[in-house]
Amino acid sequence: MKSWLSVPADSPFPVQNLPYGVFSQGDEPPRVGVAVGDFVLDLAPLAAAEGLDGGHVFEEPSLNPFLALGRPAWTAVRAWLLELVTHEGYRDLVESHLVDRADVTLHLPFEVADYVDFYSSRHHAENVGRIFRPDAEPLTPNWLHQPLAYHGRSGTVVVSGTGVVRPRGQRKSADDPAPTYGPSERLDVEAEVGFVVGVPSRLGEPVPVEAFRDHVFGVCLVNDWSARDLQAWEYVPLGPFLGKSFATSVSPWVVPLDALEPARVAPPEQEPPVLPYLRSAEPWGLDLALEVAWNGHVVSRPPFASMYWTAPQQLAQQTLNCASLRTGDLFASGTVSGPEADQRGSLLELSWNGQQPVRLADGSQRTFLEDGDEVVVSGWAPGADGVRIGLGEVRGRVLPARGGQPDGAPAGQLPAAGQRPGGPPPPG
Amino acid sequence: MKSWLSVPADSPFPVQNLPYGVFSQGDEPPRVGVAVGDFVLDLAPLAAAEGLDGGHVFEEPSLNPFLALGRPAWTAVRAWLLELVTHEGYRDLVESHLVDRADVTLHLPFEVADYVDFYSSRHHAENVGRIFRPDAEPLTPNWLHQPLAYHGRSGTVVVSGTGVVRPRGQRKSADDPAPTYGPSERLDVEAEVGFVVGVPSRLGEPVPVEAFRDHVFGVCLVNDWSARDLQAWEYVPLGPFLGKSFATSVSPWVVPLDALEPARVAPPEQEPPVLPYLRSAEPWGLDLALEVAWNGHVVSRPPFASMYWTAPQQLAQQTLNCASLRTGDLFASGTVSGPEADQRGSLLELSWNGQQPVRLADGSQRTFLEDGDEVVVSGWAPGADGVRIGLGEVRGRVLPARGGQPDGAPAGQLPAAGQRPGGPPPPG
Repeated sequence: MKSWLSVPADSPFPVQNLPYGVFSQGDEPPRVGVAVGDFVLDLAPLAAAEGLDGGHVFEEPSLNPFLALGRPAWTAVRAWLLELVTHEGYRDLVESHLVDRADVTLHLPFEVADYVDFYSSRHHAENVGRIFRPDAEPLTPNWLHQPLAYHGRSGTVVVSGTGVVRPRGQRKSADDPAPTYGPSERLDVEAEVGFVVGVPSRLGEPVPVEAFRDHVFGVCLVNDWSARDLQAWEYVPLGPFLGKSFATSVSPWVVPLDALEPARVAPPEQEPPVLPYLRSAEPWGLDLALEVAWNGHVVSRPPFASMYWTAPQQLAQQTLNCASLRTGDLFASGTVSGPEADQRGSLLELSWNGQQPVRLADGSQRTFLEDGDEVVVSGWAPGADGVRIGLGEVRGRVLPARGGQPDGAPAGQLPAAGQRPGGPPPPG
Repeated sequence: MKSWLSVPADSPFPVQNLPYGVFSQGDEPPRVGVAVGDFVLDLAPLAAAEGLDGGHVFEEPSLNPFLALGRPAWTAVRAWLLELVTHEGYRDLVESHLVDRADVTLHLPFEVADYVDFYSSRHHAENVGRIFRPDAEPLTPNWLHQPLAYHGRSGTVVVSGTGVVRPRGQRKSADDPAPTYGPSERLDVEAEVGFVVGVPSRLGEPVPVEAFRDHVFGVCLVNDWSARDLQAWEYVPLGPFLGKSFATSVSPWVVPLDALEPARVAPPEQEPPVLPYLRSAEPWGLDLALEVAWNGHVVSRPPFASMYWTAPQQLAQQTLNCASLRTGDLFASGTVSGPEADQRGSLLELSWNGQQPVRLADGSQRTFLEDGDEVVVSGWAPGADGVRIGLGEVRGRVLPARGGQPDGAPAGQLPAAGQRPGGPPPPG
């Protein structure tokens, strides 16, 4: 594809990508833009100048109204954009609506309705099983029969760049006589891929695997921050709650499924064969290459193509019971881990629950995250014309714990005054 | 309290109650109303006539804008309403804005942001433990140290009266060689009390128990429908998902905390003593009497005052890790079960997992719900002046399963054509 627009060769956003996000400049209200090369295309005035039917959706501070329009509109807008950036005659018009990406603030791209987090990497699930349940089979008996998931907290989904306050909570190791309370000592990341629902479904009607492209608009990167010590103490029998709900970061650019067509591959074989509602005639593995950088040092390269369960299967699963979809629903893959040690998407796995420290570029050693650490998950896919379709990145830095009572107070005992560390008084 | 308004003695909505909901008449747009006796008070025109500051929030189709105003506004509006219904001089004005409750349609009263479901009845947790994990201690080791919870699906919270389609899903009993797929055979209810958040909190800041009244507006009834067979097969290790996410019904009227002040009681003693962040100087047990009716036959009377964990503790717990609150967050108590056999809030417990059928008024016997069955959860609290403050009711009828592949197909095998039951073809 030839474009009059000059895009640097290493840009994640060639003209074959055209991901959508929400941006603002200065005090202007946030609105919808498309990333291309070093620029953001300001869609609202461009659509107005061109008289694009329904173009007012781009004036909104979230992608949701655009997402709700559905696939025919998504396809039409993408075709229009491709025409704008490939035909020289549109150059002056388009250039007058290009904004330097370096000058914009990026916002949460969509209002998250429900957030569901799957657990679809077999390598990850087996690693976690070996670490947390060493005396049992690594996979629970249900794992190979259906994609497992839990609902996360949609109100704490934040955009890349948002600082993550180290969570406080209860934890209790096997040796502790009683739980203690304080900042998490095992703060972790999970490198994931998220799927964004555009078109809702009706309560009472399951959505089959074949309807995936009718409902799902596109893809973003997800970092599902996890406090492993809190999670270990709370998760039986109701699953993850406070160990996950303090923050989930997403990348600011949502890449349309259309841009990822060249990345589609056959997923791993599923044995035992799955029930009919999970069967798909079309391959929906995606050859996305992820990268996890810890304080600038790449510690892992998880291959998304190794995921056991596909996104259409995840969609069919979450609506199997006739639950409805809403515009803005986000369902994430779960931690992406490949078969190799340097393809693991969490620090829990990379450090094998703290037993094998990870050495960073500056010579420091890490097991879990320290205050001030920054993690960046990035990713790309093979695109049309041999280019790379970048998913951009999801970035976050750990901020020190705030508020709360002093650390390590045993259950049922207030610490003596002299044991109180400095800092703000307890909130209560 | 004397009112010029005549309220039947057995009405759940005396003038001491004044719960808020969203109603419509005919084709008129839904708007905010207050239930009183046999009427709904149409707040928007009344506020406009009186020039009430900020009264436009009552024109909205959800309580959220009103909830977001915060406690000073909630108190002021309640005082204004109490004045209207107690001073004879307002009679003509108010009567012109009273609508027969029998003539209105009631809508979901608030837009649900995040939905969190706790597990705070010790009797319920012990019963479930005995049923599902007979070889282990009934309570998991974490249960007495923190109120456990999971996030539910906020997009499938529906208002009382909405039919509930029997969910399909996978299940596998110990004897089955492989999971089967079909309509749930163990469809259940959970009688719960929900707390509705009005005032949001900031990400990164825990909300202490003492701030409960600053954030929480009021209370509704919740029926957390549960498919026990789906839940049993899916819930390890990520907790409930499809077994719960198909529907959660709420009552249409949200009772303000202010109306429940006379119902406050000391909660059960907590032993071992809880960590400091869960301690509360003020008693926040609530003497709410619930009632579960199955096809018109009362099968249980769960006492909310027996709940082990209080709502302020639940609020502090869910923000302990610095997760933020949003207007419209709903957190529910979990199934309310008292110590006695006829105080259990789920059919799982009432029928002891199907082993002890429940006899209904018409002589029929039930273990779990059959198609066409209707369950009504109602509740009331002692109010000021010796009246009863009704929570109203949450009602739902089971509709037959829809869509999906034929029942009982073993994993990996399509059924022969002759085995297909009637009904619509599979969705895929």
